[in-house]
Amino acid sequence: MTSNRLEAFSDGVIAIIITIMVLELRPPHEISLSALRPLLPVFISYLMSFIFIGIYWNNHHHLMQAVESVNGAVLWANLHLLFWLSLTPFVTAWIGATRFASWPVALYGVVLLLSAIAYYILTLALLSIHPPESVLAIALGRDFKGKISIGLNLVAIPLAFVRPWLACAIFVLVAVIWLVPDRRIERTVAH
Amino acid sequence: MTSNRLEAFSDGVIAIIITIMVLELRPPHEISLSALRPLLPVFISYLMSFIFIGIYWNNHHHLMQAVESVNGAVLWANLHLLFWLSLTPFVTAWIGATRFASWPVALYGVVLLLSAIAYYILTLALLSIHPPESVLAIALGRDFKGKISIGLNLVAIPLAFVRPWLACAIFVLVAVIWLVPDRRIERTVAH
Amino acid sequence: MTSNRLEAFSDGVIAIIITIMVLELRPPHEISLSALRPLLPVFISYLMSFIFIGIYWNNHHHLMQAVESVNGAVLWANLHLLFWLSLTPFVTAWIGATRFASWPVALYGVVLLLSAIAYYILTLALLSIHPPESVLAIALGRDFKGKISIGLNLVAIPLAFVRPWLACAIFVLVAVIWLVPDRRIERTVAH
Amino acid sequence: MTSNRLEAFSDGVIAIIITIMVLELRPPHEISLSALRPLLPVFISYLMSFIFIGIYWNNHHHLMQAVESVNGAVLWANLHLLFWLSLTPFVTAWIGATRFASWPVALYGVVLLLSAIAYYILTLALLSIHPPESVLAIALGRDFKGKISIGLNLVAIPLAFVRPWLACAIFVLVAVIWLVPDRRIERTVAH
Repeated sequence: MTSNRLEAFSDGVIAIIITIMVLELRPPHEISLSALRPLLPVFISYLMSFIFIGIYWNNHHHLMQAVESVNGAVLWANLHLLFWLSLTPFVTAWIGATRFASWPVALYGVVLLLSAIAYYILTLALLSIHPPESVLAIALGRDFKGKISIGLNLVAIPLAFVRPWLACAIFVLVAVIWLVPDRRIERTVAH
Repeated sequence: MTSNRLEAFSDGVIAIIITIMVLELRPPHEISLSALRPLLPVFISYLMSFIFIGIYWNNHHHLMQAVESVNGAVLWANLHLLFWLSLTPFVTAWIGATRFASWPVALYGVVLLLSAIAYYILTLALLSIHPPESVLAIALGRDFKGKISIGLNLVAIPLAFVRPWLACAIFVLVAVIWLVPDRRIERTVAH
Repeated sequence: MTSNRLEAFSDGVIAIIITIMVLELRPPHEISLSALRPLLPVFISYLMSFIFIGIYWNNHHHLMQAVESVNGAVLWANLHLLFWLSLTPFVTAWIGATRFASWPVALYGVVLLLSAIAYYILTLALLSIHPPESVLAIALGRDFKGKISIGLNLVAIPLAFVRPWLACAIFVLVAVIWLVPDRRIERTVAH
Repeated sequence: MTSNRLEAFSDGVIAIIITIMVLELRPPHEISLSALRPLLPVFISYLMSFIFIGIYWNNHHHLMQAVESVNGAVLWANLHLLFWLSLTPFVTAWIGATRFASWPVALYGVVLLLSAIAYYILTLALLSIHPPESVLAIALGRDFKGKISIGLNLVAIPLAFVRPWLACAIFVLVAVIWLVPDRRIERTVAH
């Protein structure tokens, strides 16, 4: 079973998730520039979530490049990841509407954390059907980034109740770690 | 006529169906955790429908792996299936908004039943253009799961008027039956 | 230039058009069966438009099977078709909300007519880059169905002001004409 | 790394952007033709944005035809382009709701400008991994259209505060420049 259709379906779902978030940006009824000011937290939350969903798409893309075959368990591990990602528009809308209040930011962190765990489970499901000398197994290696993301998100969630902006700073740090392209897979596939 | 574009179009429609349901999860205006409590039935109905649509995508994926060619009748049988699946967001929203009341749960069961029947018709349309010794015909076999799903949904609909949660328990049972991966097709394709 | 990406993009747009129409079916706040009665015209208009968009997808699918190459003019003729199809959710919502009143039904007919003309223009753009002995040119032939659809829609629009249901009956007649699968292309491709 | 999945994901996002804009066209509650008149600016803004997004899809399609491989930087340059395009529904809704007032038209121009710059960055990212004698490098050449679009949009933004319709006239001029198909790439690929 090849991963073509899994990729196509994931692309569809991720494309919709990343795009429907913009529907929260409702145009103001006034026509002045100042009418846009209340939209600023909504815009920032959209930008933040766009980058996170973009990172997941990017990583998913790199990951699938090294995959040789999939099975039923992988399909469900992938749907499990898509489920948590699909909650991103909801938590994004909540932090935007409440201007980054504690509970919404904490819940945002929970969705990020569960997405990161779901991604980790997906890699485990893939590794279980690829031999240890496969491109996938070598490319994933010790999966340092995946583990540190989970750890940082675990720290960010309680911090949201102390200072929500500190939790957001950690989310941004996680994003920065991932934005450095995942050369492991690019390099291993190239060999 | 190959099934490539039928798969791509179905992936698109199913990806949208599974994702627009999350739009019912409107962020609360308050910022406390308790503000999320009224959203719980909406969340549970979303989770339930996400799993059902996921099962249909999964089965569709497996089914199309064994398909050698399609014709006009198959295209329409597939659109017929997509039509009933497209009503899932509507009935999901209704059971979520009414906290699993009798009529909404019964209607949810009717949409599940008609989707299951439409899927069965799709397999018949495919079998009519594949010889009995084809991978598809062998893999589908007696289609035990398809028939028991239709039977269980038929039982669940009247039960919704006695105890809505009993009907939901049967829906979950149908989901569990399908979550066990459909190894028939995986195994037959592998040969 | 192959038609792969034109097909993928069209599939995406058509999948979204066909699915967002269901968002007009808002769940009622009551939980009785009678609460669904006001939704009946919305449901019927959804069913009607689902079939029309399904017919366009089906015909587009058949048409592209016979296409050997595309150019810039074809890309724009295709976008032009998608533009008129994208207005279907709007006119569908209007006839559903006004229970099939004269002006909404007439405008629905105008959108159907312009979609049919746009489809005809697309076939002309394709024929201009295919030789007369190509599969496409032979399969399209005199394009009887395309021409009769345009004629019937032209009749239906003024009829909407006499009896809206008569105009709708003609729309259904056009659908029935198309539901008979377009064996021209299937047969010619098979040769 | 091939560009297949980058194209599929971009097609998905662009298909959604181009289609959700039609959701701003809310059907009026009255049933007369005059009830549609207030929708005219919304319709015109939809038509304008449909053409712009269509141009981007078209150019993206042509561009990717000449691409031999992509890397992580290209994936992010592409996501960056999709981000600015995804703001089109928001600014389109704002100019439609305010009947082409100065600030909304200026912001529309800013989104067009940033999209044009993002597209230019994408071509730079692609050129950096293609040799100067590649089809892509020859086809892009001096990229006259890309540069003149950025220049014209820079002129249109301040003009929106003098006469909004003048700014819109320049947007239309940019569209006309692009609607002339990009034969550079078609011709170079053909060789």
